[in-house]
Amino acid sequence: MSNDSEAKNRAVIYANPPEITARVEELPIPKPGSGEVLVRLFYSGVCHTDYGICTNGFSTLPLPTPQGQIGGHEGVGKVVALGDGVSFPRIGTMVGIKWAASACLSCDNCLEGGETTCITGTVSGYLTPGTFQQYCLSQASNVTLIPDGIDLAGAAPLMCGGVSVYSALKRAHLRHGQWVVISGAGGGLGHLAIQYAKAMGARIISLDVAAKERLCLELGSDIFIDFTGFATDSALAKEIHKVTGSGAKVVLVCSSSHRAYAQAVSFPGFRGVLACLGVPEGDSLPIAGANVPDMITNELTIFASKSGNRQEAKECLDIAAAGKIKTHYELRPMDSLTEVFQDMESGKINGRIVLDLR
Amino acid sequence: MSNDSEAKNRAVIYANPPEITARVEELPIPKPGSGEVLVRLFYSGVCHTDYGICTNGFSTLPLPTPQGQIGGHEGVGKVVALGDGVSFPRIGTMVGIKWAASACLSCDNCLEGGETTCITGTVSGYLTPGTFQQYCLSQASNVTLIPDGIDLAGAAPLMCGGVSVYSALKRAHLRHGQWVVISGAGGGLGHLAIQYAKAMGARIISLDVAAKERLCLELGSDIFIDFTGFATDSALAKEIHKVTGSGAKVVLVCSSSHRAYAQAVSFPGFRGVLACLGVPEGDSLPIAGANVPDMITNELTIFASKSGNRQEAKECLDIAAAGKIKTHYELRPMDSLTEVFQDMESGKINGRIVLDLR
Amino acid sequence: MSNDSEAKNRAVIYANPPEITARVEELPIPKPGSGEVLVRLFYSGVCHTDYGICTNGFSTLPLPTPQGQIGGHEGVGKVVALGDGVSFPRIGTMVGIKWAASACLSCDNCLEGGETTCITGTVSGYLTPGTFQQYCLSQASNVTLIPDGIDLAGAAPLMCGGVSVYSALKRAHLRHGQWVVISGAGGGLGHLAIQYAKAMGARIISLDVAAKERLCLELGSDIFIDFTGFATDSALAKEIHKVTGSGAKVVLVCSSSHRAYAQAVSFPGFRGVLACLGVPEGDSLPIAGANVPDMITNELTIFASKSGNRQEAKECLDIAAAGKIKTHYELRPMDSLTEVFQDMESGKINGRIVLDLR
Amino acid sequence: MSNDSEAKNRAVIYANPPEITARVEELPIPKPGSGEVLVRLFYSGVCHTDYGICTNGFSTLPLPTPQGQIGGHEGVGKVVALGDGVSFPRIGTMVGIKWAASACLSCDNCLEGGETTCITGTVSGYLTPGTFQQYCLSQASNVTLIPDGIDLAGAAPLMCGGVSVYSALKRAHLRHGQWVVISGAGGGLGHLAIQYAKAMGARIISLDVAAKERLCLELGSDIFIDFTGFATDSALAKEIHKVTGSGAKVVLVCSSSHRAYAQAVSFPGFRGVLACLGVPEGDSLPIAGANVPDMITNELTIFASKSGNRQEAKECLDIAAAGKIKTHYELRPMDSLTEVFQDMESGKINGRIVLDLR
Repeated sequence: MSNDSEAKNRAVIYANPPEITARVEELPIPKPGSGEVLVRLFYSGVCHTDYGICTNGFSTLPLPTPQGQIGGHEGVGKVVALGDGVSFPRIGTMVGIKWAASACLSCDNCLEGGETTCITGTVSGYLTPGTFQQYCLSQASNVTLIPDGIDLAGAAPLMCGGVSVYSALKRAHLRHGQWVVISGAGGGLGHLAIQYAKAMGARIISLDVAAKERLCLELGSDIFIDFTGFATDSALAKEIHKVTGSGAKVVLVCSSSHRAYAQAVSFPGFRGVLACLGVPEGDSLPIAGANVPDMITNELTIFASKSGNRQEAKECLDIAAAGKIKTHYELRPMDSLTEVFQDMESGKINGRIVLDLR
Repeated sequence: MSNDSEAKNRAVIYANPPEITARVEELPIPKPGSGEVLVRLFYSGVCHTDYGICTNGFSTLPLPTPQGQIGGHEGVGKVVALGDGVSFPRIGTMVGIKWAASACLSCDNCLEGGETTCITGTVSGYLTPGTFQQYCLSQASNVTLIPDGIDLAGAAPLMCGGVSVYSALKRAHLRHGQWVVISGAGGGLGHLAIQYAKAMGARIISLDVAAKERLCLELGSDIFIDFTGFATDSALAKEIHKVTGSGAKVVLVCSSSHRAYAQAVSFPGFRGVLACLGVPEGDSLPIAGANVPDMITNELTIFASKSGNRQEAKECLDIAAAGKIKTHYELRPMDSLTEVFQDMESGKINGRIVLDLR
Repeated sequence: MSNDSEAKNRAVIYANPPEITARVEELPIPKPGSGEVLVRLFYSGVCHTDYGICTNGFSTLPLPTPQGQIGGHEGVGKVVALGDGVSFPRIGTMVGIKWAASACLSCDNCLEGGETTCITGTVSGYLTPGTFQQYCLSQASNVTLIPDGIDLAGAAPLMCGGVSVYSALKRAHLRHGQWVVISGAGGGLGHLAIQYAKAMGARIISLDVAAKERLCLELGSDIFIDFTGFATDSALAKEIHKVTGSGAKVVLVCSSSHRAYAQAVSFPGFRGVLACLGVPEGDSLPIAGANVPDMITNELTIFASKSGNRQEAKECLDIAAAGKIKTHYELRPMDSLTEVFQDMESGKINGRIVLDLR
Repeated sequence: MSNDSEAKNRAVIYANPPEITARVEELPIPKPGSGEVLVRLFYSGVCHTDYGICTNGFSTLPLPTPQGQIGGHEGVGKVVALGDGVSFPRIGTMVGIKWAASACLSCDNCLEGGETTCITGTVSGYLTPGTFQQYCLSQASNVTLIPDGIDLAGAAPLMCGGVSVYSALKRAHLRHGQWVVISGAGGGLGHLAIQYAKAMGARIISLDVAAKERLCLELGSDIFIDFTGFATDSALAKEIHKVTGSGAKVVLVCSSSHRAYAQAVSFPGFRGVLACLGVPEGDSLPIAGANVPDMITNELTIFASKSGNRQEAKECLDIAAAGKIKTHYELRPMDSLTEVFQDMESGKINGRIVLDLR
């Protein structure tokens, strides 16, 4: 922070939520408070949830997103200043910033490992300034160390997308050799899910539109199914049961469409698990097909997961550092965020967009 | 089996399903095949599922219940004859017969402890003769030993009702000091659930109509809530959250009404668990309120459980043998089954009905 | 901290380790640093480990205990001042201080819940000032909230003794109805272990000398065995196997004698667990009898536990707050610590000694 | 079984235990009893435990091995006849026979998944005829289905060696990215352990003599250490801690030497796990170094494992069927067993010997 050229903080702000217009501004560099670190960010992934926050798309969030909000919750950069009482991580350490901007680590939820639902926690990019900026504050105990030798731009989407799919697969107790179905397999979450499931030894059925087939197979899917090619949802379910023999063990819904959920509920076999990751926007509808008699027949479990905790983030990066995860991303400049949100609206994104904050 | 008076098998058969008429007939005493034991039953609980089977109430069962079906799946009696190849349990052993009449113990489901969903398994009282008879065959490896010093009539309802609530609480990882809400707490399943949850050290909120308050409190509920006393479901949910501080850890739905499920989904707090036991009859509707955004907010888990396995049955009886479970039941003669089903229809049953087969 | 009489910090220091002489001194009241709280302690338990630290009895500790060390690691008191950056717990909150004086909450061990083995952590009463004083600093995120309505003096020994036995029983996956053997059941750890095992629904065999029989039975032991009454260790093991039927599920060694360990290894049955809590002083000898062929026969597990983490401390206190734990202690004045250590040497202590710091 | 040439059962018997002389005899083909299948075996691995049984090397076995014992407990072949009451597996199915020749599936141990310690169970190749013969009886519910497309001779050693290492790694909760040390990595158990650990995503340090280095690295070890190259055990431990950073997570002792165990106990880091598989013969000595103070410092767990159960065998074969396991074996004729035992005595065996029973 010694010379003038670095002494400003370029940040992308939401100009007027729920409009998707974003613009770059120069802001003062914030100072780390007690227990905080200042991180010079280099990259930030753009998650579909950022779009939802900018557009007030989530009925479960308590307040509308304010004008001037700095979004983003998948950042990677270097620690450049320490607040009072911080001895770890040291200046110069490469770290990631996640969905949970801070967590008390002491409330009932935190003690049980649920830091993303900390009772007094804050969220990166919603009410708290996020990772769409060059200089971001973070709670020192909440950053994630980035292992050496990892592609930094590719690591950014792991901070939310990666840790979310990894922790969902882990919570689902996915075991070697079991069948997992990934719905929305070619997207930002899905293409990471394929690779984490592969690293866990699973057998993988990827569901997406035909254009994603090649990517899904290259990343390790055993089977690709174009879900648009079935006359009925029940024909699709029948195909899944035929391939797996007795139904999938885990179905991971990375898509955020109601129909994807309605289909997914029929894929698992005995004691199968439906893991909900994609967040449908708009009206809150119950998962079609999640009725008790059918659930009892297979002793089905449905669970919903909101990103992962600090330990899961570490494990997620360890697997990436072992060379098993290759994020598919496109690097775009900071001033392109409005356009990125437009591309999300029209379904044009492949893999993940990463903003270049350098 | 030495004298003539015992040498017949009195059995209650469903005369004409889906009508609820049942009658007692004298049938030959069956002979145990290879791997089977013959059990002289003394008591059988009558579960609401028996009613559902007699009336073809379950859309998930493959075939209509045949004329002459002997129902029942909660029996207790003594082993009186061994089939070929059986050395255990010995003649004279007191045993219980459960929902799963037989399980191969070798298929994928069985190997993972899911014997009630064995791929080739049979079900007591549906297509296979059940426990509403004096002499019942069972797979030797599938009976449950009844510990000494336990009330035999009271043990009968444990073979389904008891093991179901116990295994659901165990699968929900209920821990000492956590809050559990039991919906339908005063019924056949619910009044056992209170006691098993108590034995696990939980704090218990019982939900039922006012007439069940005294029973629920006597059995160990910390709090009783008459759910009819709330203007809206959301007022009821608010009360649950007020009592528990941050929502229930486990909600066990023993009721089989759609409304009970729609209410229950709002009771859990962070990483709470909704356990589905009661099986709604009629149309299969999704659980109202089980929408993804709300589930993600609390990282909710919903699972459905179809009774428990052999190990869980053993644990369930161990707790009963330690004096912690007192089944509330009314003993009725074999020829009263039609009347019992009528009482079920009109909601007149308190606790469990046990047929006296002696 | 308003009047003069409180404005000093009376502390018990080890005058000259490894001698057991301790004396009370008046010291300045420390000021909380960033992330710290100042706690006005009212009670501190005296653990046998304090004796070991004062006498340099542990070969595994890196440095000899310095002159002037303030010992103690089981303290209960009220938060009276907050360091920079601390918003929780609030002033006036009743809290406990544990073995781990601080933990980074971010290293590999901490992330996996092993805060007592934090790589940069500090230990109360060894190199860091402990709880044998009126005013003690602690990391804000590391204190344990004391629930309302609990006996404060009795809660002090729970901060190490209680959490240690509870977490060992939890790690051993002790389940309702299983047999647990507690070796040294009448002592400071043991008498708490009986009660926690009882709260978990276990069946309990207490081993100690005859003088402890009444206490052990009063606290909930099903069986008391005077281990001095057996000609050989193998006769004792035979008795345990006779009582349990097939060996204990969990054996918890609260004693710190080599012989207790040598005996204990023969008590478990199939997949039994030997939990090591008591720390033998002097030469490090392997556990006699812990040989591979015998271990394989029963698929035995042996694990060692060094107190518990923050979540386990919370659970441990929750059980106490439910009225299930009654600490047996004797309250003694601050200037009696030398005498307490002498009584430990001569084996005269019943239950736990608690220093009155008010 | 249609032509005369097959109508005899060639079997290898121990002529005069504890001598290692074995000879081939022609015996009648046994008839399957109730619940049994007759298996025409094609291959059987020779485990070091067979040598120990033939020579009465295990002090924990109740009776000396009788003259004429047919050894072996790692067999693969085809079901050719079914006993009474058996409908599964069908005739023609390819199956494996394991250490547990039979298990009641109903005793306390079996219900908890410990079929290898079934209270009334029998053991292949010790008191019950084993897999060193062409026609072997087995309990129908206890055989393991061999997946298609697997090398049958290579599958034989998986039935004991494979399932033992796999279940030990699973019980140790080995997780992706963690360090595992395999002691005796180049041997029959060890070379399979490398591959199973690899399939689980672990990082592997193989310990053995220099001659095994190439094999260990080819199979997927990250690091090979020639343990003979260290002046002291503590220098070796220091090297392990240097490589792993903070000690191994899991140490799997496949060697059966006392020294290997004494070394291994120093390898794990915090909450590390020492898994005991190799069975030292001769005097039962405690594991040197397994003392309580050192174990408490790292909260070490030591457990011993006696092969795996039916579910673990299935999982173990699933991983093999996915192409991840390549057994290194040498095929030898039936009449060479004496020589195989001699080679074991002189340490000449590489990988596993498989007897050709065709």
